[in-house]
Amino acid sequence: MNGLPSVGEKATFSKTITETDVVLYAGLIGDFNSLHVNKQAASESLFGRRVAHGMLTAGLISTVIGTRLPGEGSIYMGQELRFLKPVFLGDTITAAAEVVEVMEDKRRVRLHTWCINDRGETVVDGEALVMVTA
Amino acid sequence: MNGLPSVGEKATFSKTITETDVVLYAGLIGDFNSLHVNKQAASESLFGRRVAHGMLTAGLISTVIGTRLPGEGSIYMGQELRFLKPVFLGDTITAAAEVVEVMEDKRRVRLHTWCINDRGETVVDGEALVMVTA
Amino acid sequence: MNGLPSVGEKATFSKTITETDVVLYAGLIGDFNSLHVNKQAASESLFGRRVAHGMLTAGLISTVIGTRLPGEGSIYMGQELRFLKPVFLGDTITAAAEVVEVMEDKRRVRLHTWCINDRGETVVDGEALVMVTA
Amino acid sequence: MNGLPSVGEKATFSKTITETDVVLYAGLIGDFNSLHVNKQAASESLFGRRVAHGMLTAGLISTVIGTRLPGEGSIYMGQELRFLKPVFLGDTITAAAEVVEVMEDKRRVRLHTWCINDRGETVVDGEALVMVTA
Repeated sequence: MNGLPSVGEKATFSKTITETDVVLYAGLIGDFNSLHVNKQAASESLFGRRVAHGMLTAGLISTVIGTRLPGEGSIYMGQELRFLKPVFLGDTITAAAEVVEVMEDKRRVRLHTWCINDRGETVVDGEALVMVTA
Repeated sequence: MNGLPSVGEKATFSKTITETDVVLYAGLIGDFNSLHVNKQAASESLFGRRVAHGMLTAGLISTVIGTRLPGEGSIYMGQELRFLKPVFLGDTITAAAEVVEVMEDKRRVRLHTWCINDRGETVVDGEALVMVTA
Repeated sequence: MNGLPSVGEKATFSKTITETDVVLYAGLIGDFNSLHVNKQAASESLFGRRVAHGMLTAGLISTVIGTRLPGEGSIYMGQELRFLKPVFLGDTITAAAEVVEVMEDKRRVRLHTWCINDRGETVVDGEALVMVTA
Repeated sequence: MNGLPSVGEKATFSKTITETDVVLYAGLIGDFNSLHVNKQAASESLFGRRVAHGMLTAGLISTVIGTRLPGEGSIYMGQELRFLKPVFLGDTITAAAEVVEVMEDKRRVRLHTWCINDRGETVVDGEALVMVTA
């Protein structure tokens, strides 16, 4: 069976968010907001160019949880997200998770979760709740 | 400029979550947890078969917000998610958002957001915070 | 049931046609003509660089019809297309449809349909015939 | 240089239209009409189940023209389409083109173009106009 991780354990996953990722993600979920898929309109927006979907960036947290910490056996129960800064096409994002609480009886783990870009800025911050099955 | 929506306004977006969606989403974000991409292992898991990534299902909420309510001009500031039930390949999911609070001075809107499967079960529940730009 | 739209009603849908779109579309339909997928050969062609498939650009008209005007309930009966100018990778295309005739007894609608690039040039022009089901 | 084809020359291209094709095509062009991506709603529609986008099926004609007849050197000038019958997920479609007129001075070719399913039914019919560059 899978053991529970300990408070303080940390894991990360990094990936460059390319134009391809944004085009494919828009197509998967159907979010064609012009900030994401319209170069012309995005250039006249608040951000001045296309940005990745917040939920695409946040998906990298799922990867940390589902494949690294706690990894196999994880059942995702909840995720809280604050989108702090835009992610631009070409930004390299590191998603991170750190265990902040372990509920042994319920086999649940609470993790601080966040994403950082390659300029050192935190772009997403929040918390995850995960059950660890045997 | 875009007006603010009113409390009680609601919008939805529906899509069947196919095997294709799960395969592509795994490839986009890198979450290859066996519950999602390993038919054999998933058949021996708690759920008895492959399930969609919770964050894929939750992405449909981004679609409601980015394309329908508030739609164009939306800046996603936060999303709180509780994953209540598994989504199986072939389930048709309806994501919904309903305005619960309008902060006129900050041009922010709080929405109740949730996803229902085609058996009428709520699979995701939570809340979104969105800024509406001009 | 869905009502019929009126003469003069108009809707649009915009998207930047990226390299990703052209690569994926070639793979979906199998049209690997070198104008679309061979950067070297395309650079020596009439257009001097890769161009999007005409039918990919024209697909955006399907999006206007299937999701906006007439939208849900539409049954596509016919489409006439003239490809007037090349669409290059990175061009932002706006597809538009405007109702030009409503046949109430047959529940059919004829629409003028066209696509414009971000330099204001009409790249595709034509007409669609759509049945509107209840 | 490329020679002009002759009246009566014919070519075909065949492919099974899978659920994956429809999911990807919806995502490429943004046409999430429920007939295409919502198994539940489509089951209650006129067709009783999900159908492929007409323009996806029609795209196979682009493949015949761009890769076989006239093939390399073709510049697509126009396409007329009539959608005669629905294409269901899993149908194998053969797209065909036959030269019906050759305009030597303008280096243009007119082709009869159509698509047949694996039950022998013509699902798309129409005509293409193509320029053949040297």
